[in-house]
Amino acid sequence: MSATWGEKFKITLFGESHAEAIGAVLDGVPAGFRLDTDAIAAEIARRAPGGDLSTPRKEADQVRLLCGVKDGVAEGTPIAAVIFNTNVKSSDYSQLERLMRPGHSDYGYHVKYGGHNDVRGGGASSGRLTAPLVFAGAVAKQLLAEQGIAVGAHILSVADVEDERFGTQIDPAVFARLSAMRLPLLDESKTDAVRAAIEGARKDGDSVGGVIQCAVTGVSAGVGSPFFESVESRIASLAFSVPAVKAVEFGDGYGLTKLRGSQANDPMRYDGGVVKTTTNRNGGVIGGVTNGMPIVFDVAIKPTASIFKPQDTVDVVAKEDAVLTLKGRHDPCIVTRAVPVIEAIAAIAVFDLLGR
Amino acid sequence: MSATWGEKFKITLFGESHAEAIGAVLDGVPAGFRLDTDAIAAEIARRAPGGDLSTPRKEADQVRLLCGVKDGVAEGTPIAAVIFNTNVKSSDYSQLERLMRPGHSDYGYHVKYGGHNDVRGGGASSGRLTAPLVFAGAVAKQLLAEQGIAVGAHILSVADVEDERFGTQIDPAVFARLSAMRLPLLDESKTDAVRAAIEGARKDGDSVGGVIQCAVTGVSAGVGSPFFESVESRIASLAFSVPAVKAVEFGDGYGLTKLRGSQANDPMRYDGGVVKTTTNRNGGVIGGVTNGMPIVFDVAIKPTASIFKPQDTVDVVAKEDAVLTLKGRHDPCIVTRAVPVIEAIAAIAVFDLLGR
Amino acid sequence: MSATWGEKFKITLFGESHAEAIGAVLDGVPAGFRLDTDAIAAEIARRAPGGDLSTPRKEADQVRLLCGVKDGVAEGTPIAAVIFNTNVKSSDYSQLERLMRPGHSDYGYHVKYGGHNDVRGGGASSGRLTAPLVFAGAVAKQLLAEQGIAVGAHILSVADVEDERFGTQIDPAVFARLSAMRLPLLDESKTDAVRAAIEGARKDGDSVGGVIQCAVTGVSAGVGSPFFESVESRIASLAFSVPAVKAVEFGDGYGLTKLRGSQANDPMRYDGGVVKTTTNRNGGVIGGVTNGMPIVFDVAIKPTASIFKPQDTVDVVAKEDAVLTLKGRHDPCIVTRAVPVIEAIAAIAVFDLLGR
Amino acid sequence: MSATWGEKFKITLFGESHAEAIGAVLDGVPAGFRLDTDAIAAEIARRAPGGDLSTPRKEADQVRLLCGVKDGVAEGTPIAAVIFNTNVKSSDYSQLERLMRPGHSDYGYHVKYGGHNDVRGGGASSGRLTAPLVFAGAVAKQLLAEQGIAVGAHILSVADVEDERFGTQIDPAVFARLSAMRLPLLDESKTDAVRAAIEGARKDGDSVGGVIQCAVTGVSAGVGSPFFESVESRIASLAFSVPAVKAVEFGDGYGLTKLRGSQANDPMRYDGGVVKTTTNRNGGVIGGVTNGMPIVFDVAIKPTASIFKPQDTVDVVAKEDAVLTLKGRHDPCIVTRAVPVIEAIAAIAVFDLLGR
Repeated sequence: MSATWGEKFKITLFGESHAEAIGAVLDGVPAGFRLDTDAIAAEIARRAPGGDLSTPRKEADQVRLLCGVKDGVAEGTPIAAVIFNTNVKSSDYSQLERLMRPGHSDYGYHVKYGGHNDVRGGGASSGRLTAPLVFAGAVAKQLLAEQGIAVGAHILSVADVEDERFGTQIDPAVFARLSAMRLPLLDESKTDAVRAAIEGARKDGDSVGGVIQCAVTGVSAGVGSPFFESVESRIASLAFSVPAVKAVEFGDGYGLTKLRGSQANDPMRYDGGVVKTTTNRNGGVIGGVTNGMPIVFDVAIKPTASIFKPQDTVDVVAKEDAVLTLKGRHDPCIVTRAVPVIEAIAAIAVFDLLGR
Repeated sequence: MSATWGEKFKITLFGESHAEAIGAVLDGVPAGFRLDTDAIAAEIARRAPGGDLSTPRKEADQVRLLCGVKDGVAEGTPIAAVIFNTNVKSSDYSQLERLMRPGHSDYGYHVKYGGHNDVRGGGASSGRLTAPLVFAGAVAKQLLAEQGIAVGAHILSVADVEDERFGTQIDPAVFARLSAMRLPLLDESKTDAVRAAIEGARKDGDSVGGVIQCAVTGVSAGVGSPFFESVESRIASLAFSVPAVKAVEFGDGYGLTKLRGSQANDPMRYDGGVVKTTTNRNGGVIGGVTNGMPIVFDVAIKPTASIFKPQDTVDVVAKEDAVLTLKGRHDPCIVTRAVPVIEAIAAIAVFDLLGR
Repeated sequence: MSATWGEKFKITLFGESHAEAIGAVLDGVPAGFRLDTDAIAAEIARRAPGGDLSTPRKEADQVRLLCGVKDGVAEGTPIAAVIFNTNVKSSDYSQLERLMRPGHSDYGYHVKYGGHNDVRGGGASSGRLTAPLVFAGAVAKQLLAEQGIAVGAHILSVADVEDERFGTQIDPAVFARLSAMRLPLLDESKTDAVRAAIEGARKDGDSVGGVIQCAVTGVSAGVGSPFFESVESRIASLAFSVPAVKAVEFGDGYGLTKLRGSQANDPMRYDGGVVKTTTNRNGGVIGGVTNGMPIVFDVAIKPTASIFKPQDTVDVVAKEDAVLTLKGRHDPCIVTRAVPVIEAIAAIAVFDLLGR
Repeated sequence: MSATWGEKFKITLFGESHAEAIGAVLDGVPAGFRLDTDAIAAEIARRAPGGDLSTPRKEADQVRLLCGVKDGVAEGTPIAAVIFNTNVKSSDYSQLERLMRPGHSDYGYHVKYGGHNDVRGGGASSGRLTAPLVFAGAVAKQLLAEQGIAVGAHILSVADVEDERFGTQIDPAVFARLSAMRLPLLDESKTDAVRAAIEGARKDGDSVGGVIQCAVTGVSAGVGSPFFESVESRIASLAFSVPAVKAVEFGDGYGLTKLRGSQANDPMRYDGGVVKTTTNRNGGVIGGVTNGMPIVFDVAIKPTASIFKPQDTVDVVAKEDAVLTLKGRHDPCIVTRAVPVIEAIAAIAVFDLLGR
């Protein structure tokens, strides 16, 4: 029941897709830190819909800072950031109080909230709530940059199309390049194939999912804790907060289970006086604590639940089986828009852990 | 830096492998609840080493309840459970203050704790600390059983040997059968192959990993929350606390990314007046909240980091490269022993969420 | 550094006196609960300035609910409540970046925030931030009323003028009467004396403080916990969050230290089948847990720090001693306006503890 | 229901007076910190009974560190400290399952725990649980000393006998002198009067209470936060966790309500380049944050609830009124033994706030 996450860098999330506003309260931005509002707006824009691969709905998504910032500088007190919902079309959602959308949270929420939840636009589990997360992540990225830490991500796969994986060494310069791409891929030759997979699903009134791989470079060894505050626990608890994320793995993850220990253990060497590993199969974290290598993880994003094909479902008012055919505007693939969200949660999780 | 997890059912973990004791404080066991100490001992025994597939070291692992329980009945106050370390052989660990074991937390902890951490037996990230987790899980299981909720797990794979997956419907009776097996497999015909994979690694002085699939049946729809207290976030934050866990997926997880939405969305039907889904690809949780289907997740366990082959590493005292050859007693595969641990964290996470 | 308080009923507070807005996010209002917005407005109005005893500044203080409520009914998701600051006069505050106001938080905040805090109107410690607390308290009161629990308070003293104390039995009907009074006194004959004390201070450009006594009736025995979640700990942690509160006592508090145990121990009797005490010197809480009697506590409110007499202080820019003479609009006594605030924190604290 | 307190310095408390043990898990002691075990033992001894003014019961109260410390040096991992209960006489407590002791937590706990709580020796609200608090406080004091921060306390009153108050400037050397006194008084000429008050109560089978004043010197300005993490909130939440504490005030507390603002506002001056106040009526904290002056607070300790006079009470088994006459061993005044406990909670609260 908690909308609040974090210890040193605490975020409280609120809003529904069709309420007056969504937003977040951010506690823990150091006094005197100058926010780069252009960079924040750019991150928000990366998540916003509107491209040719995405829903045609136009959202303004302007972040309004109600307090905690004066003349662009953080005061050290909580920052309340609000995005007013300016473009809501509630008429699309009339049947949703009866018919539960398969793959959506509708039925679970209907039971949890006794039917009082707002079903319009996904309500409390709406992807729109990731916009305030991206805001918080943009602030965290700026705070991390001061310490030489960078965060970036790319599309590792969409449907069956696969990108390369990050290598053992990661030059953070690649992150800037990726963040400027509409389809951030390490292997740009896959762009058309990804596009084709998404367009194919759209034409069929269907959807596709994918995998996003994220890396955090510049984190020194010794961050995190054994057990409950492991780096993995903290990142995963945020990653699984993002709607549609169904899996998280660090380093080679499931791939490690096919290796022997002699292959999975990353060998260590001194490199210019610094301890490094010659492979990074463990994703920069062992025993919950960083080892100085890039933190690398990826998340599985399931196909968008909203599709236009008829689906078997239930009518919770009539208490009978039914068939649902959705109308409206929906992304056939949210993987691209989720990239900045995954970067954001990585930034939030890592900044919150630093100095603890 | 927090050794405490949970809201309604709070566990505080302490101890190192070679300290005087390990243990946990458990806060939130309802007053008047009669603990089944035999069942607790049985769970602890499942995790204990000693079988032919495991380390030859004998550990007594007797749980001593210091307070919070009177005549076998919980008083409602915190229960402190302690396991004294009776069989520690510190002489094996002399070189470990210099040579960092690849695949282990040694280097990260060396930096984090400034060299003051106890390196013997894995120290603060020792697998031994999962024994108090199993204790807490055993209590949680008993509390869940009162509400008709059951927890079980099986080995989904070891190295390349794969078991069947849980089906859409899960009869909790299968959990009792699995928990009595030394190699809990749904497809028992794979027993010899699993055994061969482990023995093969042992003979080579190497190790193997695997995947554990866990299910929780009987949880009604509406448990969990959107965003930060999603069922996935809570289970994953505990699962990633367990040493060697490198990935967590719910339902079909990564498999969902290869499907289209029309395949990934579980269709809903009334079944005897109850809403069910005809597939359970989402693992019983959507938008962070249960939908009444079994909660199903699996975790990747990397190969045991302690192997007997020479490994490239660093000497942090001499600050130079080195080769480490470990001696002593180590499991070539901890997947089997981790099965009750994963059940435990599932039980803890679900019980903590109920009624919130 | 936490702006968030509570477990089951969680409030996140934000804003400064001269920022764009102040507000709170309220997490834990049960889905389906119909908010009485008139009652909320009435509570906010009780705290608002504007009476003849208070600052002449007019504040609108309209609470705008951004999300979490639909058609007046709580959805079960976080409620974000915002009060826009419509009547700020920043020109009054120009000298305050140099001269620290004695009795104010100015100097501590100047150091804490490195001079980046907003000094206008009290900034982050402004009494204005109690308005969102009153909002949250108004919601808590409504939730408590459903369970037969009532909250009320009166002015126990202003300067040397003393009101009666609540008796052992408290009829909640008196709370309604008190809440309608501008100077809520049990002994109304003291009204003129209180008024004279306040007006006397105003004429002298000075201020007075006082004591507020608060009671919560209808709480059954067994609420609270030993030690860290004692009822006293929870109420006190909130009470001391309110600016100008310098002391909190339960029941007879300091008076108990002048009694012997035989006088301080409240005798117990069955009264219509219910256990009651014949005195309530312990204020309804013993060992951290309620005993079924009214919870009674009082708080000391220091004299308003803003006065118009010249005061010795420091100039933190010139780093030299200085004399400060404040201008502007200030209450000579905030005790009356603090009454609904103290009721609010009592309601929040008690509701948060119920059912835990 | 939480037995855990703190953020950076987290304490989890467990045990009952007549369980096998009491203790605490301490999380947040920096790796490499050498614990002064003699100083810890000395603090524990200050709290222990045995003097001529106290209960004749002998308690060994030896703290055993189960983990987190190696060769006297903190490893950075949780420290579990256990005190085994070696001298329990349960036979004294047979009637207490029926007859609720007035002034004790018995009735509230009986309801809360459904009669499953351990009534022997005060059970979960036993003063014995303050021993682990003193342990944690002793560690905190050592950590604070490294930063030039000292904590001390004295008896401000017992019954009607009053000591002097701490002055505006406090030389921490006085703390050492006080901590060596059985009756720590600033005005030693009051020793006999205090002794007479306690002995008089003992002869009457009755008890007396008193007030303890505590000071923390050396804390720089800027520690604490506005609102929920105010220094006062944090200290008070711990102080009210201590059994028998019924009131807490900072600085002049209730006395401030009798002053005008021009008297209550502490004037500020530069003193050797440092900002100081010429009085310290606000107890070193304004708006939740320290101002660099000593933090000064006092707490009211009610008379010991266990007295030997017959008392009206209820029999919760027979559900009828009854008269209780206690036997056994009880302190006629716990104020002296509570002095190190109040110092402990001050040290814990302040250390937890530093650097946040």
